[in-house]
Amino acid sequence: MSTTASGPHAAVAPAPVDVPSGRPAASDTPAPGDPRLARLSLNQATVKRWSLTQAVDGCLRAGVPAIGLWREPVQEMGLEHSARLIRRAGLRVSSYCRGGFLTDPARTDALDDNRRAVDEAAELGAPVLVMVAGGLPEGDRDLDGARERFAAGIGALAPYAAERGVRLGLEPLHPLFCADRAVLSTLGQALDLAERFDPDAVGVVVDTYHVWWDPHVRAQIARAGAAGRIASFQVCDWITPLPVDSLLGRGMVGDGHIDVRSLHRAVLAAGYEADVEWEVFNEDVWSADGDEVIATMARRHVECVL
Amino acid sequence: MSTTASGPHAAVAPAPVDVPSGRPAASDTPAPGDPRLARLSLNQATVKRWSLTQAVDGCLRAGVPAIGLWREPVQEMGLEHSARLIRRAGLRVSSYCRGGFLTDPARTDALDDNRRAVDEAAELGAPVLVMVAGGLPEGDRDLDGARERFAAGIGALAPYAAERGVRLGLEPLHPLFCADRAVLSTLGQALDLAERFDPDAVGVVVDTYHVWWDPHVRAQIARAGAAGRIASFQVCDWITPLPVDSLLGRGMVGDGHIDVRSLHRAVLAAGYEADVEWEVFNEDVWSADGDEVIATMARRHVECVL
Repeated sequence: MSTTASGPHAAVAPAPVDVPSGRPAASDTPAPGDPRLARLSLNQATVKRWSLTQAVDGCLRAGVPAIGLWREPVQEMGLEHSARLIRRAGLRVSSYCRGGFLTDPARTDALDDNRRAVDEAAELGAPVLVMVAGGLPEGDRDLDGARERFAAGIGALAPYAAERGVRLGLEPLHPLFCADRAVLSTLGQALDLAERFDPDAVGVVVDTYHVWWDPHVRAQIARAGAAGRIASFQVCDWITPLPVDSLLGRGMVGDGHIDVRSLHRAVLAAGYEADVEWEVFNEDVWSADGDEVIATMARRHVECVL
Repeated sequence: MSTTASGPHAAVAPAPVDVPSGRPAASDTPAPGDPRLARLSLNQATVKRWSLTQAVDGCLRAGVPAIGLWREPVQEMGLEHSARLIRRAGLRVSSYCRGGFLTDPARTDALDDNRRAVDEAAELGAPVLVMVAGGLPEGDRDLDGARERFAAGIGALAPYAAERGVRLGLEPLHPLFCADRAVLSTLGQALDLAERFDPDAVGVVVDTYHVWWDPHVRAQIARAGAAGRIASFQVCDWITPLPVDSLLGRGMVGDGHIDVRSLHRAVLAAGYEADVEWEVFNEDVWSADGDEVIATMARRHVECVL
């Protein structure tokens, strides 16, 4: 007797469930090769408990063609080994996370560390190094000064990155993080800075979580696209109530308040053609089975993003 | 023998301590009548556990000449009684909190409730009714639609308020609150809306907590001042880490990351001459002795605001 799930007498496979919501899936999981997965990328922070090998294998099983990498797990595996693994798997690298943190004068190694991150991105074949500005130094209230230091740091790094074929992707973070993580707070502000440099050297990262509230988000996406500056498009949702750790308040798209589809259409209309990277920092997502996270991501990508 | 704290043989009064930090005060507490207190206002949410009577008495003891009122404690005491209490105490009312919440079509009583709030503000002699937009309705991701409903509500209320001599103060809230509390997210956005109406009818509220991160905050303060639109200036600080309840993450000025003095100077330079209202939602502040909260406020007003 057949054990496939087709036909009236077949064993019934358990209906898929979305994680971490626990709700029944609203659609079938797209199979590997489904053209709707063609531009889907898994940022490996979404399956944070997995090693790079596990994340690559998970992408291959699910037919996710691209991956966003982080420095820590790459360093854990070793740069060369990681690069070989990704190449052999045939995955695209959509981004490399992350550089930046250029606002604290006490961090005298920040530029050197960023140059190493650029080198790593080049070795991995990542087209963009995601740059997070950094927050206010301890006890410092000079926000303009911190912003100027970030700009100066980008100025120092841009030629180095351009020579190596890596684009710096300036990522504005939600103003929630202005004090302690990123003094770059809006897409407009990121573009004002990026425009001092060649578009191939410096672009911007549009992350739905960080920009969705901005009354000017659509105008700024159009501006970014017209200038060829959209280096990466990342998606996740804004969920409420905020969790205790405000860094982990991101949801699977569809679980929160953001109209991600309309923002995706805006970046498409602005000429963006690269990957749509799912980056979800969330303890409940991290605690779930990685394959189920990826399956939920694939379904929701079709339901809520495309 | 004298018990005053002056002279070499006098009993020594305990050195004052700031609350809730517990740090020794960095300056003497300004005495009642000190001209540096002339534009200081206590928003009664800063001493939330106190009744209106207690808050008024606290202001009188400390020489704080103005108070920002909230609907709930006023209703608790009764409107007429509250108005009489404030008048007899000789306190200015700097603002009345709050109206708004006009984004949810299911709240069919919202306009009526706001008209009542306008009536109450008029009776209390409050020059401004603080308007918080409201968030996205449950399950709704149409942010533009919610913003349009808020604008329509302001349009419906502005003539009513103007007839009664009460100004609607549109308060942009930090984008942290965009989903669940206020779809009005920046000062620029608030001004775009306010400018559809007469400046005497509709102004904006500048609260340091909500606007400090905005790369355009100084330009927008200047714009607001030039148009005579600054209806209220409120201060508190952004502290990290954010507390579990993100509504309560405000600090006493000086305890966090905001350069409040520079923002105060910006509103002064823009022509603002009304009160500086301290509004601090913070469980540790609420748990402290109200007189000590007010004393800390008075010291920090001199140290960090003026």
